[in-house]
Amino acid sequence: MSLEVSIVCLNCGAEYGYESFPWRCVNCESPLSVSFNSMGSGFKRSVLTHRVKNMWRYKELIPVKSSTPVSLSEGFTPIASKRIDGVKVYFKLEYLSPSGSFKDRGSSVTITQALDSKAKRVTEDSSGNAGASIALYSSVAGLRARIYVPRDAPEGKKELIRLLGAEVVEAESREDAFRRAVEELKSGDRYVGHLWNPFFVEGVKTMAYESIEQLGWRVTDYLIAPMSGGSILLGFQRGLSEFDELGYVDGECTLIGVQAAGYSPIHDRIHGEPEVRVRSVLADALRVLNPPRLKELIELFRGRNRVVVVGDEEIKVALKELIRMGFLVEPSSATAYSAFKKLVDEGFIKAGEEALIPLTGSGLKMIDKLTLILSD
Amino acid sequence: MSLEVSIVCLNCGAEYGYESFPWRCVNCESPLSVSFNSMGSGFKRSVLTHRVKNMWRYKELIPVKSSTPVSLSEGFTPIASKRIDGVKVYFKLEYLSPSGSFKDRGSSVTITQALDSKAKRVTEDSSGNAGASIALYSSVAGLRARIYVPRDAPEGKKELIRLLGAEVVEAESREDAFRRAVEELKSGDRYVGHLWNPFFVEGVKTMAYESIEQLGWRVTDYLIAPMSGGSILLGFQRGLSEFDELGYVDGECTLIGVQAAGYSPIHDRIHGEPEVRVRSVLADALRVLNPPRLKELIELFRGRNRVVVVGDEEIKVALKELIRMGFLVEPSSATAYSAFKKLVDEGFIKAGEEALIPLTGSGLKMIDKLTLILSD
Repeated sequence: MSLEVSIVCLNCGAEYGYESFPWRCVNCESPLSVSFNSMGSGFKRSVLTHRVKNMWRYKELIPVKSSTPVSLSEGFTPIASKRIDGVKVYFKLEYLSPSGSFKDRGSSVTITQALDSKAKRVTEDSSGNAGASIALYSSVAGLRARIYVPRDAPEGKKELIRLLGAEVVEAESREDAFRRAVEELKSGDRYVGHLWNPFFVEGVKTMAYESIEQLGWRVTDYLIAPMSGGSILLGFQRGLSEFDELGYVDGECTLIGVQAAGYSPIHDRIHGEPEVRVRSVLADALRVLNPPRLKELIELFRGRNRVVVVGDEEIKVALKELIRMGFLVEPSSATAYSAFKKLVDEGFIKAGEEALIPLTGSGLKMIDKLTLILSD
Repeated sequence: MSLEVSIVCLNCGAEYGYESFPWRCVNCESPLSVSFNSMGSGFKRSVLTHRVKNMWRYKELIPVKSSTPVSLSEGFTPIASKRIDGVKVYFKLEYLSPSGSFKDRGSSVTITQALDSKAKRVTEDSSGNAGASIALYSSVAGLRARIYVPRDAPEGKKELIRLLGAEVVEAESREDAFRRAVEELKSGDRYVGHLWNPFFVEGVKTMAYESIEQLGWRVTDYLIAPMSGGSILLGFQRGLSEFDELGYVDGECTLIGVQAAGYSPIHDRIHGEPEVRVRSVLADALRVLNPPRLKELIELFRGRNRVVVVGDEEIKVALKELIRMGFLVEPSSATAYSAFKKLVDEGFIKAGEEALIPLTGSGLKMIDKLTLILSD
């Protein structure tokens, strides 16, 4: 890393060191962010020609010290395009990632940084996918991992985390998983919770770099993505603005965050109460009620950017369509496609425009659940 | 397709038409092959620069008529490299494919051709992965699919095939699945069995093109791959020899086919009885006892190419190591890595050499089974 990196609190301005930052600001309890000057990174588009096709091809822009990242060739997932209702939709197949979800981007950077700072044991809380991903990368890095999950997380996800050698602690709810994860930290444990750890989003942002590169150095009119803690939205914005600063991309991309009914704190803060009120059961990966980065997200959803809430009936329809198109994804991933259809119906997205939809998680982890939903 | 294509019997020389070939030679009952002149295809390496990164970037060399293939952006899977015992090993992550196995390459071409020849219903027999893959591509193409599987195929694979809308017929054994698939064909059914259909290997061969391109237009010293019906080996050989003819690659690649103990007909014909005799339970994807392309395979395993047989104890050790390295694969995929270790121990593969190992199928389809194996 030739970058000058600091870990900062965007709320109160406190600064921390790369190896010794706390899991949240000790002054104001806000989540921390990584700060560096992308212009000074030395990254040039021309270096890409001969680099391997995974997310570390943008290594100058990934602010870790180690020159040997904990990597499983994550990233550079395929894009499949389809014309739907006159709109060109680019599906980015993030479910074809090493642990079956886009979280691998964040985990690769988070665990690389954890090794840099001499961690031996890491703790995470997750509704499932991030837990499996952190478990996988921890295992590869030789770190011990403890993952707190809500008791009702899909069995396949819990079993996968255990298979990867991590300890699974079942908590009463998603909130309880977080509370216990940080309360039960022992000396030597490092909390890497993906909603809090500032390096997670530094991995997720590569999804933006890649999409821009894969589409020929341009952006689509819309990005539509599931939103729980908001890492895709925040990561995408970060990646876009860095490539914008570097002069690699031009044009506006409207960001659409999609929340599941009953789990829509970001929507509710910005747009008020949603129409759909029946709490979603299907979107098991989108259950964060207290997103730590709420302030950053409220900042993000200004102007044309917006949050959409979808309910189980719409998710089910969207999931069936996606699987019929050949995309074997989990129900939570279908929320974004469901929102796309809603926005087309509303006339917000118009024929002739283009949308990028990351398909975030694999359906192979829960074939039994998919079978139930699809036979319904 | 600007290619002149014919469907030929390599045994008796009979020729058939593109749209009307039978599932095996009507004269001598041998499997058929696609014949075309790759030199006349019009393919040039320079066209690749601006093409999307999936297997259809080599479309001039894929002998189907349709210009709109049934594709889910399969192919161009990542390569992860590691130095193991002094050997540079390139793992090709084929398990990150749309249905979770390399079979998607073959299915994409097989189903595209089936549509070209106006099929409405297709029949396949499979130990699981090819069935799921054919089910997926059939569903996308709007074809009805019936898949015969052995009763003891992993539940996750059977459930996945059903989820994709195909009819699953459970047969007594892998052989019985094949026998019934062809005996129970009704008028209008098209048998696309991947061990027989000549187009399947035309998809699998793209794995060779890609590896060559990804490694910088060269081959490794070895390709080591699981072998059941032999489609990877035959496909690889075909891809290599086409790129050799076109002048894109130079150098020898020794091909190693890996069979599971108790299911080693190709090994036994070539090298005699294997040392390991306890029938494998773990390698559920490698259960073909009567490979239809035996003659082609015997031809292939001349010179330095060879067949290796591995047993469950070795498979288990290899699987554990692969998962510890972060590769979430199924047990059948671990056979190739197991054989690699055996050949290094024997001194057949030497420090300083390079090996390519396709990791063929996803472990996410059978997390419960992996848990059992790994806890043992």
